[in-house]
Amino acid sequence: MPHKRTGTIGDADKIALAHGSGGTLMRRLIEDEFATVFSDVQLEDAATLCLPLISQARTLGEGLDSGSGAGMTVKSGAGMTVKSEAGMTGEEAFGTAAAGRIAFSTDTFVVQPLFFPGGDIGHLAVCGTVNDVATAGATPLWLSVGFVLEEGFPLADLRRILHSMATVAQEAGVKIVTGDTKVVNRGAADGIFINTAGVGVLTSAHQLSAAAARPGDVVLLSGSIGDHGICIISQREGLAFSTDIESDAAPLNQLCADVLAAAPDTRLLRDPTRGGLASALNEIADASQVSIEVDEASVPVKDQVRGACEMLGYDVYQVANEGKMIAIVPAAQADAALRALRANAYGSDAAIIGQVSADYAPGRVVVRNAFGATRIMDTLVGEQLPRIC
Amino acid sequence: MPHKRTGTIGDADKIALAHGSGGTLMRRLIEDEFATVFSDVQLEDAATLCLPLISQARTLGEGLDSGSGAGMTVKSGAGMTVKSEAGMTGEEAFGTAAAGRIAFSTDTFVVQPLFFPGGDIGHLAVCGTVNDVATAGATPLWLSVGFVLEEGFPLADLRRILHSMATVAQEAGVKIVTGDTKVVNRGAADGIFINTAGVGVLTSAHQLSAAAARPGDVVLLSGSIGDHGICIISQREGLAFSTDIESDAAPLNQLCADVLAAAPDTRLLRDPTRGGLASALNEIADASQVSIEVDEASVPVKDQVRGACEMLGYDVYQVANEGKMIAIVPAAQADAALRALRANAYGSDAAIIGQVSADYAPGRVVVRNAFGATRIMDTLVGEQLPRIC
Repeated sequence: MPHKRTGTIGDADKIALAHGSGGTLMRRLIEDEFATVFSDVQLEDAATLCLPLISQARTLGEGLDSGSGAGMTVKSGAGMTVKSEAGMTGEEAFGTAAAGRIAFSTDTFVVQPLFFPGGDIGHLAVCGTVNDVATAGATPLWLSVGFVLEEGFPLADLRRILHSMATVAQEAGVKIVTGDTKVVNRGAADGIFINTAGVGVLTSAHQLSAAAARPGDVVLLSGSIGDHGICIISQREGLAFSTDIESDAAPLNQLCADVLAAAPDTRLLRDPTRGGLASALNEIADASQVSIEVDEASVPVKDQVRGACEMLGYDVYQVANEGKMIAIVPAAQADAALRALRANAYGSDAAIIGQVSADYAPGRVVVRNAFGATRIMDTLVGEQLPRIC
Repeated sequence: MPHKRTGTIGDADKIALAHGSGGTLMRRLIEDEFATVFSDVQLEDAATLCLPLISQARTLGEGLDSGSGAGMTVKSGAGMTVKSEAGMTGEEAFGTAAAGRIAFSTDTFVVQPLFFPGGDIGHLAVCGTVNDVATAGATPLWLSVGFVLEEGFPLADLRRILHSMATVAQEAGVKIVTGDTKVVNRGAADGIFINTAGVGVLTSAHQLSAAAARPGDVVLLSGSIGDHGICIISQREGLAFSTDIESDAAPLNQLCADVLAAAPDTRLLRDPTRGGLASALNEIADASQVSIEVDEASVPVKDQVRGACEMLGYDVYQVANEGKMIAIVPAAQADAALRALRANAYGSDAAIIGQVSADYAPGRVVVRNAFGATRIMDTLVGEQLPRIC
């Protein structure tokens, strides 16, 4: 099992694989390094941003006074407004007038292998960013794409990846509008890395946030967990077992919209990718300062995934997903949200898996098994499976 | 000169270094592969996009009817509008009402070495995307950042890079609002790659475009060319010469705003990065179906850069810049644009370097030397210098 490196933290002065795990070490890197230097970073899957209130008349296409000039407005007039308004997060600015709100997110994809049952790196790169934008409650509209290609990468593979991206972008209703390509010398990258960034429009005043869960809320999950992670590891060279588990990678923007329509007071949406369900729920419990109790029997897990996890010593709650969504909604809207999830092709196995409570310490996530015993659902600490996405 | 690979195209079925050069082969890759599959890609440095006309009342913070619900609006009502409006480019939608227009761009940075006189990969990653957004005439507001880190990368180097990004982002007045970090195993990347994507707001109805140059227009350049490329190559291992030439990497958004204020009918702005002045001018001449004549004596080139180019056999017009801007403006506004450029700290050496004409074949760029003789200014064909940015 060459890729199993649980607990490998490494030298404290150097980047370790676990810094990319989606678990505790990654969280620490983000909080200690990135967030302290980049003080405007929003620690959500997508940033929500208020477009500045500038020159509505101009953006609406009315005549320009060429004497004052477009640039002049940018510099001296509107530019000042831009600066002050841009500093407002969606939360701060909500309630005040704004020209519009967008969600903005990015993700880089380094998955190995590049092609796997149920998808490929291109499919994943579109789905991942579409889903991150959708978790903000936004309608994803536009993607950018940045390629790093290794010298010698087969053009046929690139074409296959591009077609895959175009196909799933069309399914999701998003347009790839801008891009960049860099080529590095042989050995300086591993075939292809793809970054996507996405912009979506927030059509409602509703503010979803990892900090919005409240005791009494209900936790829903759109389907079975662990499929993507187990699919990837089953494809990796050197592993003795094989399985026909496919990646669940899928664009969930319509599913998110369906939930928001059915449960308008939805607290938050979150896709449990790197670090799995455990990392996502722990982040939510921490941000909301609540505890979350998960009913083990209600969490959908495919038999093959469960078997593979047992064989490999993985905690299925920590295995990555790429086509699942967590929704936390007020109890009164839980049934409606569940029906909406199940009515969507990507949510047919959706379930209510737990509830938000104040029964445990704030930030704690517990799992209750079929016999009523509880245990802590821990965030991944080391690296379980590098280059899962 | 281990990095000099001019003309190395390689196997036609595989990615070659020249596919990332900014020259002819990259152009072919983009046009033949990306643009055919991604039919919505705008072949400019930044895409300009109209935010859809949805629920202005809602985005303005007015009350929500919780019966119809936010999500419902996304799905069935506004969602339809989103889809049809999103298809409009800025050009198509201009003149019709729109909620606002944004510019969106992305760039991945793979430069080697990571630290160099005048900047580092982080500084470059912020400047590059800020400048691309600014070339659309937009005010850059927000950046995303995606890191690919190699296992073992020194945390101290990462911190230095992050601080550099934060510092130049502050100078440019842009906020880094969202990010992602991936870690790959040792040997699967070369230290660090950084993707940035940027969103800016278009505050004027003016539409800048590489296709907008007209015979009689004047070509301005904000300063000396070749500094970044020669700086990078002088830093590369194995090169016998050294120079104190610094990279020109700089955020040019204020400079762009200054030009637009002074010359409100500016046709286009373009930063001549990979492929240098030659690629940028050839792309403009091609897109606008005009010819461009450059006056060789008027193009600012530092003596050391000129000397290095002669020694290395480089055409200075093809060497990359990271802090220069081309502006093409109507003749009547050329002096005003030049004054505006020179008044900006990053444009103190600005010059009028040529004019747009119909004297040669459409798409042709010629250089006239001090003796009146002309030659063609060619786009780079092979790869001059990989990993320049």
